[in-house]
Amino acid sequence: MIKAISLDVDGTITYRDRTLSIDALKAIRLAEKLGLPVMLVTGNSVPFAEAAAVFIGTSGPVIAEDGGALSLKGEGTMRKRVFLTDMNEEWILWSELKRRYPEAELSYSTMERKAGIVVRRTVPVEAVRGIIKELGLNLVAVDSGFAIHIKKPWINKGTGIEKACELLGINPNEVAHVGDGENDLDAFRVAGYRIAIAQAPESLKKKADYVTEKPYGDGGAEAVMHILKKFGYLGGKDADGQEGNSG
Amino acid sequence: MIKAISLDVDGTITYRDRTLSIDALKAIRLAEKLGLPVMLVTGNSVPFAEAAAVFIGTSGPVIAEDGGALSLKGEGTMRKRVFLTDMNEEWILWSELKRRYPEAELSYSTMERKAGIVVRRTVPVEAVRGIIKELGLNLVAVDSGFAIHIKKPWINKGTGIEKACELLGINPNEVAHVGDGENDLDAFRVAGYRIAIAQAPESLKKKADYVTEKPYGDGGAEAVMHILKKFGYLGGKDADGQEGNSG
Repeated sequence: MIKAISLDVDGTITYRDRTLSIDALKAIRLAEKLGLPVMLVTGNSVPFAEAAAVFIGTSGPVIAEDGGALSLKGEGTMRKRVFLTDMNEEWILWSELKRRYPEAELSYSTMERKAGIVVRRTVPVEAVRGIIKELGLNLVAVDSGFAIHIKKPWINKGTGIEKACELLGINPNEVAHVGDGENDLDAFRVAGYRIAIAQAPESLKKKADYVTEKPYGDGGAEAVMHILKKFGYLGGKDADGQEGNSG
Repeated sequence: MIKAISLDVDGTITYRDRTLSIDALKAIRLAEKLGLPVMLVTGNSVPFAEAAAVFIGTSGPVIAEDGGALSLKGEGTMRKRVFLTDMNEEWILWSELKRRYPEAELSYSTMERKAGIVVRRTVPVEAVRGIIKELGLNLVAVDSGFAIHIKKPWINKGTGIEKACELLGINPNEVAHVGDGENDLDAFRVAGYRIAIAQAPESLKKKADYVTEKPYGDGGAEAVMHILKKFGYLGGKDADGQEGNSG
């Protein structure tokens, strides 16, 4: 039984230019209306993820900072934030990195982060990994293609989803996860049903129960509709309430 | 000549429950496509406002923290943030408020704010104003209905729009502003064309060049389409590319 959906944001419910897909928006609102809570999962900061939840209208916890931070709906417009770690080792690393590479720069979003730091790609990721090893820090450096994310090795989308499920009182194997990146593999490990978006790497598609036909946000809409149909939330109707014709 | 649109967020492009109106989303994307940049203006924090700009796809600067902070598109996924003030006096106030009212609490979003603090309504706004007066601080306390915003008196949507225009190289009187609250009066003072959303207070409607027929996000969509038609960006076509029938 699937009791919640967790959705990657960039590339899964957005187009390639990061703008939100209207079809994905409609499908998510339909899932919420049918009683299936949606959790957004992103590498972005908590306030960024909270904005997504507010504008889209998702009721599940949002999972931010690559799984290291959560935000839950509170009373009225209040929210409750939960951070799964601190940044003590990250700041030790940063201090040494900046000493050796004066051109190193923190991403502008580090100001609002609490579960890991983000460094601009003005330094090589190998240099960061070298310092982590040399200082014996319990950290990993992940190159997202946009920036270098430095965090505890156990912080990932999977641990974020597990914590969200604990707060919701459900089991992670009652969650269907949808994503398009290598880092969604961690979510796939804990989720009960797995969907990869068409443009995902083969490594993710291989582990998926379903791969969408459409890419990006249109694929995200397709994935949510697939879940609603497969798990009995919807009897062959699509987001506009018309009869669907997908297989 | 109108060269940009500035849009309040909550209640103007969202429904009453703060979720984004799909019609407003479509109208904003049409304005951008037609070469009219859109600036979002909000009392929310910078990362919250940045998320709105990314998901909606607005190219103009976003104006956050009630006008005290801006964020501009940079290279790739980078952004440039500009803060118009610091919070020295705000922290003096907070320290005294907390001493006298141990039940005082900062809003969870204060962590990512840099141009003013937000205090929960567990203390009376009059108590905050009393301390401001007593300590001779150059601050104002504004009750938004959700929380108490404490900031410099000259920080408002108008000063935020003026700074955004300076960065865009246009004049504030080339901006059309759309809003639904008392605090949009400050934006109306600097803008060249003014639209109030149907549910706005009379004080705002009185100063408007146009008042929408529809409330909330539907009114926001109506306002954007009105601007596109009135200022020659569109010849009687609506957001779906069909002939419109509004007057």
